[in-house]
Amino acid sequence: MRIIRDQTGAQTNIGYVVEIEDGKPRVYLDIDERHINRGNSLHGGIMATMLDAVAGYAVSLSVDGQSLYYTSTVSLTVNYLARVRDGRVVATARKTGGGRKIVFIDAELTAEDGTKVATATGTFKLFGEKIDI
Amino acid sequence: MRIIRDQTGAQTNIGYVVEIEDGKPRVYLDIDERHINRGNSLHGGIMATMLDAVAGYAVSLSVDGQSLYYTSTVSLTVNYLARVRDGRVVATARKTGGGRKIVFIDAELTAEDGTKVATATGTFKLFGEKIDI
Amino acid sequence: MRIIRDQTGAQTNIGYVVEIEDGKPRVYLDIDERHINRGNSLHGGIMATMLDAVAGYAVSLSVDGQSLYYTSTVSLTVNYLARVRDGRVVATARKTGGGRKIVFIDAELTAEDGTKVATATGTFKLFGEKIDI
Amino acid sequence: MRIIRDQTGAQTNIGYVVEIEDGKPRVYLDIDERHINRGNSLHGGIMATMLDAVAGYAVSLSVDGQSLYYTSTVSLTVNYLARVRDGRVVATARKTGGGRKIVFIDAELTAEDGTKVATATGTFKLFGEKIDI
Repeated sequence: MRIIRDQTGAQTNIGYVVEIEDGKPRVYLDIDERHINRGNSLHGGIMATMLDAVAGYAVSLSVDGQSLYYTSTVSLTVNYLARVRDGRVVATARKTGGGRKIVFIDAELTAEDGTKVATATGTFKLFGEKIDI
Repeated sequence: MRIIRDQTGAQTNIGYVVEIEDGKPRVYLDIDERHINRGNSLHGGIMATMLDAVAGYAVSLSVDGQSLYYTSTVSLTVNYLARVRDGRVVATARKTGGGRKIVFIDAELTAEDGTKVATATGTFKLFGEKIDI
Repeated sequence: MRIIRDQTGAQTNIGYVVEIEDGKPRVYLDIDERHINRGNSLHGGIMATMLDAVAGYAVSLSVDGQSLYYTSTVSLTVNYLARVRDGRVVATARKTGGGRKIVFIDAELTAEDGTKVATATGTFKLFGEKIDI
Repeated sequence: MRIIRDQTGAQTNIGYVVEIEDGKPRVYLDIDERHINRGNSLHGGIMATMLDAVAGYAVSLSVDGQSLYYTSTVSLTVNYLARVRDGRVVATARKTGGGRKIVFIDAELTAEDGTKVATATGTFKLFGEKIDI
């Protein structure tokens, strides 16, 4: 399993961790006070950040399941199903369609007790250039 | 003008500022290394956070333009139009429809040079309870 | 299995058929010249209509799996994955979250050869009143 | 002003009309029984069809304001703000960003009395080939 921490300023600041196993990405976060909104639950923007990140990794890995290619998000729709206050939340993603330039991804975020917290669907650009990490 | 800083853990950690003037919210952020993705530009998740925040304030203010009511995001779609690397980005929002329970909002994020960086459209729940701030 | 044809002006004009079995809806359409766009493939608007219809039935059936309750679409996002020129297309849907007032649905449209043609995610209002059919 | 009627099977069957003036498209429909849902109002799928059509024309015209280029819809989000039962509904669209390959469009649908009925935001592919009409 490959583990990616603190790779960018945004990742370090928010504190989510990326794991890649068998060509599939997983993004998790242990909720603390940095992630909390006015209602004392996980901020929707942080959920969107995690869903965007895991979806981007799924796009990145969609070429050969190993190399990471550069990607950019074109459009992302997030549905907010439930609140979550603490514990570890995990985001996963899968490709639903597209090819070498545009890729479609569905993603979801799940709380520690199995509650589906948010779902996302997005379209991404995939570039020909590999990321060196 | 009312200025809201550091009101929640997420706001403090990311560092965006909310301004309310004439019943209209504005959210700005001075980009620094905490906000940067692998491509050395503003992370899409931070953009989504700002658009969600400004849209939520627009919903919150939609009752009487002064009081802030509790809201929650139901669904948010973000389109990523351009990258932005530095300077101040500003998010604004306007209500397009809805009523006392469901409110529809369009929002946009603009760079210092006037480039439209991202747009968003979302649906929000509006609650009857006021926020004390 | 319950089969619903020609129940509304729009359904009759477009010609899609609704089937409900074991509490689950399915909407199909046999593509003909009424459904074709400039590129000689199924019009994206017809795809959206089918995805909206099947999602609405899934919401409607979400209370008890048998009765149909009134619903209305709040927001629908459709991703267009592939073109389809002929044959039968089938739309299915499943509830991902929500409760008695707001329901979240994912739906997809599949061509006769198994190609995933479009996916959708939406939010719907569920009303307390039953539909008499 | 250029008026486009009955150009495709779907357009003929649904009956919407496209007008292009000063490089800007407008799509209108006079609501009749072919367009009606179970609630005796305009079917959300027809609204999506009109919003998709007007957005596609806006993309198509985005190169030089005159020639029509081939386009395809990548993703479309529709928010349903209000019901409309009769009269003429009109859809308009404007480009918010993008370039020669991907174009971002916002669109809206308005009833005869000025009520905003639905809004849409979408991403579209723009091809290099002109449409002969």
